[in-house]
Amino acid sequence: MCGIFAIENHPNAANLTYQGLYALQHRGQESAGMVTWNGTSMNHHREMGEVSDIFDDAHMGRLTGNRAAGHTRYSTAGHSVLANAQPIVVSTSMGPIGVVHNGNLTNATAIRKQLVEKGAIFQTTSDTEVILHLIARNPRQDLIDSVLLALSYIEGAYSLLLVTAQGLIAARDPHGFRPLIWGRLGDTSCFASESCSFDLLGAEVVAELEPGEVMVVRGTEVSRHVVKAAELPARCAFEHVYFARPDSQVYGEMVSTVRTEMGATLAREAWADADVIVPVPDSGLFPALGYSRESGIPFELGLIRNHYVGRTFIQPAQDTRDFGVRMKLNPVRPLIEGRRVVLVDDSIVRGTTSRKIVRMVREADASEVHLRICSPPTRWPCRYGIDTPNRAELIAGNDRPIQDICDFVGADSLEYLSVEGMLACLGDPAPTYCTACWTGNYRVPITDAQHELFPAGRGAES
Amino acid sequence: MCGIFAIENHPNAANLTYQGLYALQHRGQESAGMVTWNGTSMNHHREMGEVSDIFDDAHMGRLTGNRAAGHTRYSTAGHSVLANAQPIVVSTSMGPIGVVHNGNLTNATAIRKQLVEKGAIFQTTSDTEVILHLIARNPRQDLIDSVLLALSYIEGAYSLLLVTAQGLIAARDPHGFRPLIWGRLGDTSCFASESCSFDLLGAEVVAELEPGEVMVVRGTEVSRHVVKAAELPARCAFEHVYFARPDSQVYGEMVSTVRTEMGATLAREAWADADVIVPVPDSGLFPALGYSRESGIPFELGLIRNHYVGRTFIQPAQDTRDFGVRMKLNPVRPLIEGRRVVLVDDSIVRGTTSRKIVRMVREADASEVHLRICSPPTRWPCRYGIDTPNRAELIAGNDRPIQDICDFVGADSLEYLSVEGMLACLGDPAPTYCTACWTGNYRVPITDAQHELFPAGRGAES
Amino acid sequence: MCGIFAIENHPNAANLTYQGLYALQHRGQESAGMVTWNGTSMNHHREMGEVSDIFDDAHMGRLTGNRAAGHTRYSTAGHSVLANAQPIVVSTSMGPIGVVHNGNLTNATAIRKQLVEKGAIFQTTSDTEVILHLIARNPRQDLIDSVLLALSYIEGAYSLLLVTAQGLIAARDPHGFRPLIWGRLGDTSCFASESCSFDLLGAEVVAELEPGEVMVVRGTEVSRHVVKAAELPARCAFEHVYFARPDSQVYGEMVSTVRTEMGATLAREAWADADVIVPVPDSGLFPALGYSRESGIPFELGLIRNHYVGRTFIQPAQDTRDFGVRMKLNPVRPLIEGRRVVLVDDSIVRGTTSRKIVRMVREADASEVHLRICSPPTRWPCRYGIDTPNRAELIAGNDRPIQDICDFVGADSLEYLSVEGMLACLGDPAPTYCTACWTGNYRVPITDAQHELFPAGRGAES
Amino acid sequence: MCGIFAIENHPNAANLTYQGLYALQHRGQESAGMVTWNGTSMNHHREMGEVSDIFDDAHMGRLTGNRAAGHTRYSTAGHSVLANAQPIVVSTSMGPIGVVHNGNLTNATAIRKQLVEKGAIFQTTSDTEVILHLIARNPRQDLIDSVLLALSYIEGAYSLLLVTAQGLIAARDPHGFRPLIWGRLGDTSCFASESCSFDLLGAEVVAELEPGEVMVVRGTEVSRHVVKAAELPARCAFEHVYFARPDSQVYGEMVSTVRTEMGATLAREAWADADVIVPVPDSGLFPALGYSRESGIPFELGLIRNHYVGRTFIQPAQDTRDFGVRMKLNPVRPLIEGRRVVLVDDSIVRGTTSRKIVRMVREADASEVHLRICSPPTRWPCRYGIDTPNRAELIAGNDRPIQDICDFVGADSLEYLSVEGMLACLGDPAPTYCTACWTGNYRVPITDAQHELFPAGRGAES
Repeated sequence: MCGIFAIENHPNAANLTYQGLYALQHRGQESAGMVTWNGTSMNHHREMGEVSDIFDDAHMGRLTGNRAAGHTRYSTAGHSVLANAQPIVVSTSMGPIGVVHNGNLTNATAIRKQLVEKGAIFQTTSDTEVILHLIARNPRQDLIDSVLLALSYIEGAYSLLLVTAQGLIAARDPHGFRPLIWGRLGDTSCFASESCSFDLLGAEVVAELEPGEVMVVRGTEVSRHVVKAAELPARCAFEHVYFARPDSQVYGEMVSTVRTEMGATLAREAWADADVIVPVPDSGLFPALGYSRESGIPFELGLIRNHYVGRTFIQPAQDTRDFGVRMKLNPVRPLIEGRRVVLVDDSIVRGTTSRKIVRMVREADASEVHLRICSPPTRWPCRYGIDTPNRAELIAGNDRPIQDICDFVGADSLEYLSVEGMLACLGDPAPTYCTACWTGNYRVPITDAQHELFPAGRGAES
Repeated sequence: MCGIFAIENHPNAANLTYQGLYALQHRGQESAGMVTWNGTSMNHHREMGEVSDIFDDAHMGRLTGNRAAGHTRYSTAGHSVLANAQPIVVSTSMGPIGVVHNGNLTNATAIRKQLVEKGAIFQTTSDTEVILHLIARNPRQDLIDSVLLALSYIEGAYSLLLVTAQGLIAARDPHGFRPLIWGRLGDTSCFASESCSFDLLGAEVVAELEPGEVMVVRGTEVSRHVVKAAELPARCAFEHVYFARPDSQVYGEMVSTVRTEMGATLAREAWADADVIVPVPDSGLFPALGYSRESGIPFELGLIRNHYVGRTFIQPAQDTRDFGVRMKLNPVRPLIEGRRVVLVDDSIVRGTTSRKIVRMVREADASEVHLRICSPPTRWPCRYGIDTPNRAELIAGNDRPIQDICDFVGADSLEYLSVEGMLACLGDPAPTYCTACWTGNYRVPITDAQHELFPAGRGAES
Repeated sequence: MCGIFAIENHPNAANLTYQGLYALQHRGQESAGMVTWNGTSMNHHREMGEVSDIFDDAHMGRLTGNRAAGHTRYSTAGHSVLANAQPIVVSTSMGPIGVVHNGNLTNATAIRKQLVEKGAIFQTTSDTEVILHLIARNPRQDLIDSVLLALSYIEGAYSLLLVTAQGLIAARDPHGFRPLIWGRLGDTSCFASESCSFDLLGAEVVAELEPGEVMVVRGTEVSRHVVKAAELPARCAFEHVYFARPDSQVYGEMVSTVRTEMGATLAREAWADADVIVPVPDSGLFPALGYSRESGIPFELGLIRNHYVGRTFIQPAQDTRDFGVRMKLNPVRPLIEGRRVVLVDDSIVRGTTSRKIVRMVREADASEVHLRICSPPTRWPCRYGIDTPNRAELIAGNDRPIQDICDFVGADSLEYLSVEGMLACLGDPAPTYCTACWTGNYRVPITDAQHELFPAGRGAES
Repeated sequence: MCGIFAIENHPNAANLTYQGLYALQHRGQESAGMVTWNGTSMNHHREMGEVSDIFDDAHMGRLTGNRAAGHTRYSTAGHSVLANAQPIVVSTSMGPIGVVHNGNLTNATAIRKQLVEKGAIFQTTSDTEVILHLIARNPRQDLIDSVLLALSYIEGAYSLLLVTAQGLIAARDPHGFRPLIWGRLGDTSCFASESCSFDLLGAEVVAELEPGEVMVVRGTEVSRHVVKAAELPARCAFEHVYFARPDSQVYGEMVSTVRTEMGATLAREAWADADVIVPVPDSGLFPALGYSRESGIPFELGLIRNHYVGRTFIQPAQDTRDFGVRMKLNPVRPLIEGRRVVLVDDSIVRGTTSRKIVRMVREADASEVHLRICSPPTRWPCRYGIDTPNRAELIAGNDRPIQDICDFVGADSLEYLSVEGMLACLGDPAPTYCTACWTGNYRVPITDAQHELFPAGRGAES
């Protein structure tokens, strides 16, 4: 998961992009970067770390121009590497292009293989470089035609923002897997993963990009294009479940509203005879409120999150069980002690964290712990941009019975939101959401056998 | 405000102190430090910044011994300076002493003046150095007698932890202005500003220190002493209102419980005909829950706090009104739009932040905004350790009518919790709390005319 | 100018490369980097700064394998950018390749243009990326054939070291513009810009690579190849004049020996009636010794160099003339006062620094200042890898008379070493040295009209 | 060893102090600091590291005023600690005082003991704090009287600079152990350890302070005072041998001149039948020139020093003998091979470094190595401010015969400069130099039994 932001036609494009990225910081704290076009040259900067640590006045002074795009990157498996930070900026026969990307292509490895066989060189392991090669190898009079052609070759999930000499280009894949929203601030256009980044700027939402839509903005001119004939959308529901900020609008719905409704639906589907509803903060807050209202069981902030968790931590000398979770969460004993607790969380991946939280709540002397999950069991890995582990590592992978999972996490009962219940909350009658991680129904087939994009003999920048 | 922590009789005293400080990080992010005694030498380290950024393995390797104390410091007015970071470690005729201190003495300037006239030199502007001078100048066979004598000279607010060759000493002033709690982990004793720091270690609360109590711990031996004849305690209620973490126990009461009760009392005292109760996060969360339950008006998380606010921020190029508040808080429009909102916050100091928050909520199209404050109007500056501005800068200073404040912040109505209502929530029938900032009733008179501790000709370490 | 180093068949390849780069630190302090191959993956790290600041134990732990290459980069015009740091590491159909490069291609722009037209994308402005594209686009069964073919296309100056899965490849251009030396430490082969980097490792010089030679080393196997039919070498004499360390062997000659001989020749060609010979440290030390011995005039260390010159410096408040030079050099007045001084320096570029030094020596009350330069007048810019300014900025550009330059720098007399005298010192009867910067005789024509490798619309990573 | 600098009556006092410290950087790279007085407040900053890394524009902006003093500190035994960085700034009844100090008191421990018994507290282990206590405890109408009284109590070596509200005070101990020089730049006065720091500012030397002299400068007014009745001076000769920069004037003599003369004297005293004279750079350069001229044997730069030696270095993986020395020095083989070499160095402490250098020169195939030391054997530890080890660790301690030392370092012959020869070079007929480290004749008796200034139970700030 990543956050992307871009802006066109603003004299302080870099400054506003900085703010936009700042508001998207929750989508990735590993690295961030920005590229700007000033009419003559393209400048960029990227670094490991958080937005406010990366950019200083000296950088901002060099990031000149009224067109800009930026990126925040989520820390995934393996050690963090600068080479994977975005934007990627390249020189082509049609001029320089800087790109930021959120998503995962399903045929990147296959295309990459072909490109490499044709003599292309790759400097990163990212899908994004594939897209740039395709654009560069298919030059057209008008850059947008080249971009459209390149996009016609690729499959899978992408929300893209390209800074070019010809204009700012925003593109969303035909299934609309990842969000991309268009905003306006006077004569300035902006694009972002989430609407919360517009709020800080004082910009207003115009619309979500349609799945398969490509927009070119140059000054106040906007042209709209289509990648492919319309397909049934396959939007990622996890944006609503976990990724997005509750004050954001995603796919036309407020995240807070959807989350509250998920909690309410869960209460109807999986009521528990309990004394208190306790959210696992922060993503469980709204669902727990919804569950509480629907069930009539009081809502209590029984787990407190420590927001000062730093990047590094001296290892504890004593042998504290579940130390990692205890650093971040602490129970409020009087709200839990002697009570039957419904614990509301967003999802379960490997089950180990849930197990620790349940144990922590039991040690605060809850009389019963009922775990309620506001999404269906995650049984299949995501192939469209979320860094989920493979089936063997997913606690619900290989169709493991819910009761087994309940036993593993040590709850008195465990219930998940049903797929139908989930979809009903998403505010769209048609099945326009991807359900692959719950059902294994991958709307876009996985051409690439493996995620091994850089097969034999390619490590990483350390 | 600061956070203090100490430990006695643990082979990894520094490591546990690190964790203890980590849990107290909310009490101060400006600087932190630690001192340890290993039976032969006293070692310390202190630096500007947050706990997890300050200490590395090299520091921890040198902070040897089974007795330790640490400090986190809150950023107050003026530029931050290392010279004011704690611990202060000195050599005396009774051996080395390292001290951490939370509070503010009311006769420090007067004593300092006398000490300076007697030839003492001061290397900091802090009260703490006064205490160390008093101890050093009154040597006794047994160090504790020297400490007790020194404490008999000082007045005002202090919770102190001293690492000495003779033992770990914990002291709380006779009025008990600031909290100090004693915990145990097997044969290990620990002391902290708040109980939440015990939870991470797995330690258990034994008791609050009594006002005026001094404890000496050496290994598993504990001796208890009294500074002065008992006085009516004057505990600081703002610990419950604002400073402490809700999962902490302070003055024998859970903070979350007190806050919820304050909200409920406020609802009874100052009901508002409204559609939703919205907390100003994070300190408004529990009071808003209490208000909501008592009033029956729904609780909504209508303001989202951005927890990625860094220490530095590139200034915005555009002229966004209330930018500073908008960086930290963002409204969830659908929860506010068209609704009569009760906004619940902990206190109002200068009124400027409240004004911005009210404006933000109005701009999200609330139909009415009723501001409810879970503490009485702050009319007088604190002289006992909280960095409040003087009367002229306090919006409620000089007995300004509430209606004027309401007009200033732009709310439809503004109500505060009454002093009586507040005290009733604090769980103690007797008036054992300080009410100076609300009533001007300073239980300990201010000997020092001004806070100017370093009068003519003393600046600061930059 | 840059320093390059590589090693094959050593279990601690990265560690020895670190040492090799450390010894080459004088060839570039702007950035450094390293790439290693461990039989499975290629890992690299590069950063702005000096070698000992860049690599820590964590980096070294990831730079595994027994094949490695590294680079130190000299700060040239414009602001320093990470994007230009080396190595560059890419993925190709023949596997991953990591490359470090010292030199400058003369037809890079033309080739780049063609490549871009064929759809290649460029992520840097460096020549090195051109070479990698050429290799990748001409795959052969055996990688070395692909490399040889790629090298047959390029012209100009290059000393290259390539880490590949197939072996370590070292290449030197047919004119041998830049040095590249081969060493051995038991079964380990190493390559470096200068022999001084072998000394620290305890490795021994085997030989210089021949101009146009390409070596492939894999374990203890060595194969030698030729890029093109032999041409008359055009080795860069400035290695001996300025760049290399005096304890290095370059082109088969000890730098200290050549420098001393240059000073002696200069004394014969341009004797001055003076009292003392004073070197401009450090490059003037050996020439001044040679001049002193030949002339019989005493050698004095009349200028002291401050070796603590940092990267940044707070600007002086007062208006000190020649402050920049005074920070680095300070005269020893008693050695200069009242004396006729021969000042021996390596070269004059713009003349401004020489002017300041002459003025400084005059202000130390030298009665006469005779400037003697141990190389001919620099009249033409280098096109083969040295960052010299254009003719208009060169004080000796456009055939300006020596007397004019003497007037400009303010010396009583100014003499340069003759081209013939210079060549005679270089220990080779044949004219195997490049004389372009003195004579304008560019042995390899400049295909690229300008150095503007990234024409319209490409800035830099800030 | 440390470097100190101060300035009075300059609107940019901090800026010029920065430059002064920069020029004194060779006297200490461990830490640096500065204090300024602006007529109202005293501000200071100190940090670990080199001058140009420590101070930024923000610090300089706060270091306001036209009176300033600064300090650079040498890394001594034990781990480096910020607590020992200078200046020390304190508040007293006579106003604030900031002090920097070069030297070592011989009765500090005794005085400290008394002060501690009287209730004084010490926050550092440094002598300097003792002086401040003495001043503060003896207040007088005029601060200078208080300073003079305090100085009358202390014994040993000190050059002191005090920034006070009353003026800038410079003091030198009655024996003049450490240098302190007075300079002028228009109406501005400045003081420094060495004259080289005046050169960068364009200031001129006025005079050395006399031993026992105390100067008070306020604006352009200067008053001169005397600590005690004159004693026979005991100036430290090691300033000339090793510490000072050759372009400095110390004790009225140019260091370069003295060093050259030491080499010449050594040649007369200890001639060697050899082919070349090779200095151990940098301190051996001038002595080797002197030896060469006197002996007629050619001077050769046969050892090259690497000036890029950083603070940290990744440990070598291979087992290179003498790696530490090889990192810093490298022989120029053709200048050494097959030759009889006289190696000229300044002194021998433990003998281990000399041994490595001799071995390195032998491995470069010198046929003979004759070590010549430009100072007498160091047989006794310094008690006046140089961090020499105790007698047992000194290779010449306990009167070990020179031949034994020669055998240890592996030279063919070893000769030292005689004490008489040394004194003759120092340009003063009277025995005004301290000879304690050569003869054990400690002019000021050591009151303090040990250097253990902080006896039981005092470690260090880590």
